[in-house]
Formats: sequence, structure tokens, C-alpha cells
Amino acid sequence: MSRERLYLFDTTLRDGAQTNGVDFTLADKVAIAAMLDDLGIDYVEGGYPGANATDTELFAQSRPHKGKFTAFGMTRRPGRSASNDPGIAALIEAKADAICFVAKSWDYHVKVALETTLDENLASIRDTVKAAKAAGREVLIDCEHFFDGYKANPQFALSCAKAAYEEGARWVVLCDTNGGTLPHEVEKIVGEVVKVIPGDHVGIHAHNDTEQAVANSLAAVRAGARHIQGTLNGLGERCGNANLVSIIPTLKLKKEYADKFDIGISDEALKSLGKVSRALDERLNRPSFRYAPYVGENAFATKAGIHASAIMKEPETYEHVSPDLVGNKRKVLVSDQAGKSNVLAELDRIGLKVDKDDRRIGRLLEIVKEREALGYAYEAADASFELLARRTLGTVPNYFDVSQFDVNVEQRDNALGQRVTVTMAVVKVKIGDESMISAAEGNGPVNALDQALRKDLGKYQDFIKGLKLTDFRVRILNGGTEAVTRVLIESEDESGEHWTTIGVSPNIIDASFQALMDSIIYKLVKSGAPA
Amino acid sequence: MSRERLYLFDTTLRDGAQTNGVDFTLADKVAIAAMLDDLGIDYVEGGYPGANATDTELFAQSRPHKGKFTAFGMTRRPGRSASNDPGIAALIEAKADAICFVAKSWDYHVKVALETTLDENLASIRDTVKAAKAAGREVLIDCEHFFDGYKANPQFALSCAKAAYEEGARWVVLCDTNGGTLPHEVEKIVGEVVKVIPGDHVGIHAHNDTEQAVANSLAAVRAGARHIQGTLNGLGERCGNANLVSIIPTLKLKKEYADKFDIGISDEALKSLGKVSRALDERLNRPSFRYAPYVGENAFATKAGIHASAIMKEPETYEHVSPDLVGNKRKVLVSDQAGKSNVLAELDRIGLKVDKDDRRIGRLLEIVKEREALGYAYEAADASFELLARRTLGTVPNYFDVSQFDVNVEQRDNALGQRVTVTMAVVKVKIGDESMISAAEGNGPVNALDQALRKDLGKYQDFIKGLKLTDFRVRILNGGTEAVTRVLIESEDESGEHWTTIGVSPNIIDASFQALMDSIIYKLVKSGAPA
Repeated sequence: MSRERLYLFDTTLRDGAQTNGVDFTLADKVAIAAMLDDLGIDYVEGGYPGANATDTELFAQSRPHKGKFTAFGMTRRPGRSASNDPGIAALIEAKADAICFVAKSWDYHVKVALETTLDENLASIRDTVKAAKAAGREVLIDCEHFFDGYKANPQFALSCAKAAYEEGARWVVLCDTNGGTLPHEVEKIVGEVVKVIPGDHVGIHAHNDTEQAVANSLAAVRAGARHIQGTLNGLGERCGNANLVSIIPTLKLKKEYADKFDIGISDEALKSLGKVSRALDERLNRPSFRYAPYVGENAFATKAGIHASAIMKEPETYEHVSPDLVGNKRKVLVSDQAGKSNVLAELDRIGLKVDKDDRRIGRLLEIVKEREALGYAYEAADASFELLARRTLGTVPNYFDVSQFDVNVEQRDNALGQRVTVTMAVVKVKIGDESMISAAEGNGPVNALDQALRKDLGKYQDFIKGLKLTDFRVRILNGGTEAVTRVLIESEDESGEHWTTIGVSPNIIDASFQALMDSIIYKLVKSGAPA
Repeated sequence: MSRERLYLFDTTLRDGAQTNGVDFTLADKVAIAAMLDDLGIDYVEGGYPGANATDTELFAQSRPHKGKFTAFGMTRRPGRSASNDPGIAALIEAKADAICFVAKSWDYHVKVALETTLDENLASIRDTVKAAKAAGREVLIDCEHFFDGYKANPQFALSCAKAAYEEGARWVVLCDTNGGTLPHEVEKIVGEVVKVIPGDHVGIHAHNDTEQAVANSLAAVRAGARHIQGTLNGLGERCGNANLVSIIPTLKLKKEYADKFDIGISDEALKSLGKVSRALDERLNRPSFRYAPYVGENAFATKAGIHASAIMKEPETYEHVSPDLVGNKRKVLVSDQAGKSNVLAELDRIGLKVDKDDRRIGRLLEIVKEREALGYAYEAADASFELLARRTLGTVPNYFDVSQFDVNVEQRDNALGQRVTVTMAVVKVKIGDESMISAAEGNGPVNALDQALRKDLGKYQDFIKGLKLTDFRVRILNGGTEAVTRVLIESEDESGEHWTTIGVSPNIIDASFQALMDSIIYKLVKSGAPA
């Protein structure tokens, strides 16, 4: 059987941005697009230039992309020419490889929402594809409400899809906009569509309103579609879009699909999928879903029970795929070995040479487990892990001690009746026999502490002068202001290297201070500062 | 077409108890079983008597049940008679209406895990069914690994199922134990099974390892199975079991199923499904999944401005089912992507009657956009939006002013040489002509401020005594500790209502204070506190 190419289209940055509670900054979008590129996604939809300031800015500048960077927008408005539609103009100006236009394909919506005729809707699709192709862009048409439209008026829905295809749209994407279509309906309707448009021009865009977006996407592929739209972690409006993080491993690992299709994701990239999934959550500052298929912390976890002995004998008969293939780990109670090899790999990466039978490895593993139970997450804090490892192995000098700090935030009206907030910190540092006290103002307590701490570190001052904090993330574990606070701080130095450190405490200031200290000490270690 | 009865079997208390992180007490189990009974579930599986103390105790006592209360256990061990197997004896003694026995049906597992012969496995199934029926129990057989077993040796897998059926098991349940079977495989294999066992004796038990447990369950029904096993909220080992909370509304509301099947869930009970789902999360002390199909807080939420105006015109064309039917609510989100229609819809939901041409609507929309440009995100902060709207419309009294606050965090060694962190806050409040000053300690600056602020609010004190902070989320916008901090605070009161407020400032303390203030004022507004 000849293998076919199946294309993946990620809309995390566009439809995913419609998720309640998700609000990407420009920096978020640039970083996530790069991550999707590295994964091997064919199309990365960045947003809707012209609709809001962030997206307009995102598409104002060319950036290198491996996949096709795609802009989203609407087909031309009724009663207007494409060249006279400012929306189309903004899309054609956008720095994008491809443009995905949404078009109506449900007769009812054309009449009620668009308030125009069916013919005018078809003309709008044709004109829009033509205009974008003339500007040298690859064109995709998202047929909105296609399945509901097909049920109401199959002829019209099909004629919308055909109009796009005939004008040269690379992909005609059938959207289950309301998310209520069932897999067998998707399979049947896509089967009808591919009779009139070749399947390698047909895509699927499914939503999860009946918890079947993944099944709907795969049903469309079985019926002949060759392009899947989805998002990381199933982000998206209402209940979300089809979750690419679940779809990708199924396509790569299940015989039915793996034997038939090639996708842009390499075996190596597949192993990074969990990391990508968690990085998105980290950026959204929300906990990763422990029970996520393939990549979740518990996806291959078995609670000791009736299966236990059999799992130890023949693990693969209790696992539908091998966790290694998706970069995940089996979690059975006696899994110290797996942990140890991870730690060894990490030490190797850091460049710390340790014999694999060194008893300090076991001790380090224990400390990591103890601290993770308290809320630390070393996977997200590479520099703090490195310090912990180096301390356990005894190679971190005691550069300096902070014997005391004090930070104060006061808010009041000043003499002019203006509300002012004043933040000051005092830090007492001991370096060898020398004691020094520094104070600084800041625009928040952590900033003030950071300023005070770095004001005078004596002989170490030169080593840290290029150090900059670039991000600060806070999460409350177990909810409530009285629970434990986890702070992650990202730092950068003059060489452009980034690192992340962590602090955990019931007190956000204490947690932040731990992370600040780790960042400075990491920088001293890395710079080879003398003890 | 004659209607058929489809039976629901809930295993939240058994397979759901295998979820990593879930540990039901006896009281939990009794309460959840009652809730499932009220919902109209046909079979409630309570646990595995004999396997642990909680389950043994649960089944030691008869309790009134509407559905069939079911005990889980194993078929008799190889080489033993049923009457001589203590496991079987414990199950027969258990106060249960039905017993669900798990049996091997994959030849490989019989040989490797059970270390016995295929014939002995069949004999074990027959003897077990016979013994339980003789004791007057309804019998169900869970065929473990049925789909993998069928792929490896269809004849043997089928012979296990047939043995159970022929001895009089009411249901033969086909289990996708590893969760890796795909919907089209389930449909095909169930289709083969119902050729030899009548479909109204065949059940499905699916796991979510490819995010298709719901689709697999429905595929089995389409192929002829008439019994679905699943859990509330998809609890269960690894990635969970089929989520009954998603399956039930689909069976009730989607024509394909609703026209053909009756289930035990009434239209009224369907409206309580969200409450049941949240009650389980409450008991597990975990946040409800906002994006859950049908019942999630966001399941009918729309953010896109282009959809919002159409939703106001014709809601049903943007909703796959009506939210009322599942006891949920339509929600149009207010964000910088929103238009006037989003704001109008939200005002309507809040119960603020405003004429749609009122010029203050335009003013409110402008303020929302200005503030969102500063970092506010009102879609995630319903209560702060409501206050903003009420203030713009002039209906929020000026209850009190905070003229000054001061919060201090100090870290040092105490007299015993232990590192201690001390946090104190002072708040000066003016209510009418009265000025009062309160101080409090806290385990972090926000907690201390919260304590101090709520220590004495004079005549408002009674209104806020049931107020609790339940979550606190921090995000830095544009990176770095010098950037803007966004704080979201979730609160709850004695009535169980939840609301979220927001604060944005370069200073995390100021941002937190704004969100705290909004939460208290929202509570006063909602309680009808006098100005």
C-alpha cells in the first residue's frame, strides 16, 4: 500500500486564543509558534491580523518559520469587492505563508447571520480565494458549520466547498463549528465530500462539545480527509478543539494509521510531545492535566492492585503503547531504577561526571522526591536542579549568606492627594567575615528584594552585573492564599543564556527569595566565581 | 421503530477509585452512591468487598438503593471450586443486588498472568456465574482485555463471553482494559460479538487512553451493545474511564440515540448532571473542569465577537444543544475581542436592565477595552466585570474607603537560630465618618492584608463573615519582575457561590489588594448591604 501524507494544522494561537481564560501576549505567541515549528507541525495559525493589536503586531514582522505560518480572517464581505475589503487587505499585507479564510457554508447562516444570498456567498468565496492566490499566498478555506449546513442543505454546503477548491484553495476544511456532530456522521459526510473534492484537499476542524473531537478528526481521516486542525492540549472555544497532543501519538503509533500515513512529526519529536504540552500549560500558568492520554503524569501509572504482579512480569501487555515512544514513563511502585537513569542522564547533560553506582545518586533522587512532594518541580527549573545536584555532590561553594531581609509595601495618599505605593527592601549579606547591608526601592516586593540583594555583593558584584530577570511565574498549590506558593523565576545573562529557578513556601516573598538566590548562585557557579 | 432500553453502569466507586490521587472514604462512597441513585443510574458498582476495609464495610450493611447496587470481584481461582474460594464467598455474602466478576478473555493473559489453561479459564467463568446465580444474585461478567484478546484469538475471546452468557450472566461486558482500542475496531468487534450473544446482554467498558472512551462506548452501542460502563467525570485508572457525564446528554439529546433508546435518566435528572459532576469534584477537593462538555462552566461560553452578535439573534444556531436541557447557562464573554453584543448579553445575565441604545453601554465597552489593554481580563473575572458595569451605570454605593495600608515581610534567624519569616499588615479603613485601623499577621503578604482588611469592617462585618478566598492566581504580563502583574482571586461564600475578581498593577501587592477589594465589594452588592 502506498503511503500518504497527512497534514497537521495547529490553531492554538487562534482558536485556542478563544479559550475562556487564555490571553496570549505577543511574546507568548512567538514562543509557542517556535515550539510548534520544532515539533514539526505543517501549518501554524498565528491569529487574526486586524482583529486585535497583538495579532496585528505578530503579523507585522517576518520571522523564520519551518512550517507554514498562517493568518486567519474572513472571506470578503457581501456586496463588496475583495480589493475593496479592508479585512482582506490586512490579511494580504500580513507576513504569512498561508491565509485561512472562514466562509459560511450553512444556508441558514448565510441568510440570518450574513443577511445575504446564497449566490453572493459563493461569489465571496471565489473572489477571496482568487485575491489571496493572486497575492501569492497559499489559501485555506474553513467552511464554518459545514456539518450542520450539510444536514440542512447538502447541495449548498457542497457548492461552497467546491467553489473554494475550484478556485485553487489548497485545503477546504470542514468545520464542526458547534461541536455537536457525532463521529459516524462525520465519517458519512466527509465520505460524500471526497466524492467531489479529492481527499488530499479536504481537512477537518472538530470541537469537543460531545467529548469526541479526537474521534471526529480520526473518523474524517478514515473517510478520506488528509488535513487535521487542532490545538495543543485541546485548547479552544467552549469545550475546546481537537487535541493534537492525543491525535499525534495515535497517528504515529496505531497500526491502522501508522501503516498508511506519514506526518511531519519525527519519532524524536514525538518523544518531546509531553514537554511541549507542559510548556504550554506553564506559559498559561495552569497545572498540567495529570490524566492526559499519552503525555499525562498518570497516563502510564498503575495503582497497586490486581494487576501489579502481571505488570512486573509483562509490562507491555498492560500498556496500549510503550511510554518511551511518547517520552513518558511507566509508573509502578518499584520504579526507582527509571528515576535513577533519569537523574544520571540529567547529570550527564549538566556535565557532572558521577559513577552510576555512586551512592550519592540515590541520595539525590531521594531529596528530589521529598522536595517534589513539597511542591518543587525540578523539570521546570533546570538551574535549581543543577544546584541541588551540585550541592548533594558537594561542589557548590558557600559564596555568601543572607542573614536577614525585610521588605515593606505601603499604600497611601501623598501630600497632593494622589494614591502612591512605596516598596522598599533591606537585605543583610555576609561574605566571609564582611557584613553589608543594602536597601533599595522597587515597583513590587520581589523587584525591591532583587535590587537590594544585587546592590552590593562585594567581590561577586562583577559576576552578576549582566544578570537580568526575564520572567516570574507564581502558582498556588492546593488553592487559597493560605496554601503553598510556587515561584519560578527565569533569568538571562549577557551571553544570552536563560535559566529557571524555583522557590516553594507558604509565603510568596520567601518562595520568590529562594528562587532569586538560586538564580544568583547558579550564575556564580556558571561563571566560575571563586569561593 | 420500537424503542430499546439502554442500561448505564457506574463504576466511579470501583474503577474510579483506581485513579491516582483518589481515595474514597466510606462516607464518600455512601454519599456518591446515593447521588448516582438519584440520577437514575441502573447499576452502581460500590467496590470490591474483601479487597480492602472500606469496601468490605460498605457491603457489610444493607442500604436502600434505587438502582442495582453491585459488588465487584474476581471469578474463581484456577484449580479451586467456587464454593471453596474465599473471594467468591465474600462476594456472595456482600449486601449487593448484583455481582460483577472480572474474567480473563485474552489467551495470552490466561497463560502468562493466570498461569492456567484456556479450558480451566472457561470452567472458572461457568462455575462462578453458576454459584452467584444460585445465591440469587444478578451476575455480570467483565471480560478483561476483550478487544486485545479478540484480536489475538477471536475464538477464545468469544468462547469466554459465550460461556458467561450461556450460564445465565445478565450482562457480558467487553472491556478495553488497556484503553488503546480505536472506535472503528470496537464497532467491528462488538458487531461480531452480537452475532453470537444477543445485544441486550452485551456491555462495553472503555478507557480513555487515546481520548476516545466516549466514542468507543457509543460505537459499541451503534454495533448493538445495550449496556455502558463508565464513571462520573471520567475518573479511573491512568487516563480514566468513559465519562458518563458526557455520554448521558448525548444519549438523551442527540436524535440518533434519543429516537431509539430509553435510559434511566429523566429529563429533570439530566438538568442536575452538572451539579452531580461538581459535587464529586467538591468531595475530591479538586477544581471542576471548566471546559467539560455539556456541564462545564465554559461549555456554552462564547468569546469571539463575530459569533456573539449572531448568538444573540439566534442562539440555537451556535449551540449544538440548548444549555437549559443540561442545567447549564449560555455565557457570552466580555473581552477586548468582544463587541457591544457580548456586553449586552452579560448585562442581561447579571440582571442589569439597560436599553441597548443607552450610551453608557458604549462607554462601558470603551472602559473594558482600555482596561484590558492595561492587562485586565474581564472574561476571567466575572465579579470585577459586574462591579465595573454597575459602577459605570452608577449603582454601586461607596461602602468604605481604605485610606492606607502597610504590609511588611521580614526574614531573619530567631533567638534559637531558626530561620523565621514574619508577615504583618496594617489597614486603615474609613466608613462614613468613622475611621478604624486593624492589623493582622499572615503566612504571606496577601493573606495578612486580607486578614487585616476583614478584621473590622464595622456595620459590614456581618455581610462578609462567610466570605472565603479559594484561589489566587498570578501572571506577569510581558515578562520580568518589573512588568505588570495580574492577580485573579476566586472567592466563595456561605451559599456556595463562587466569583472571581481581578487586579492589575506593576506591584503584586497593589494588584492583589485591588482584587481583594473587588471581592468584598461584590459580596456587599450581592448581599444588598446598605450604603
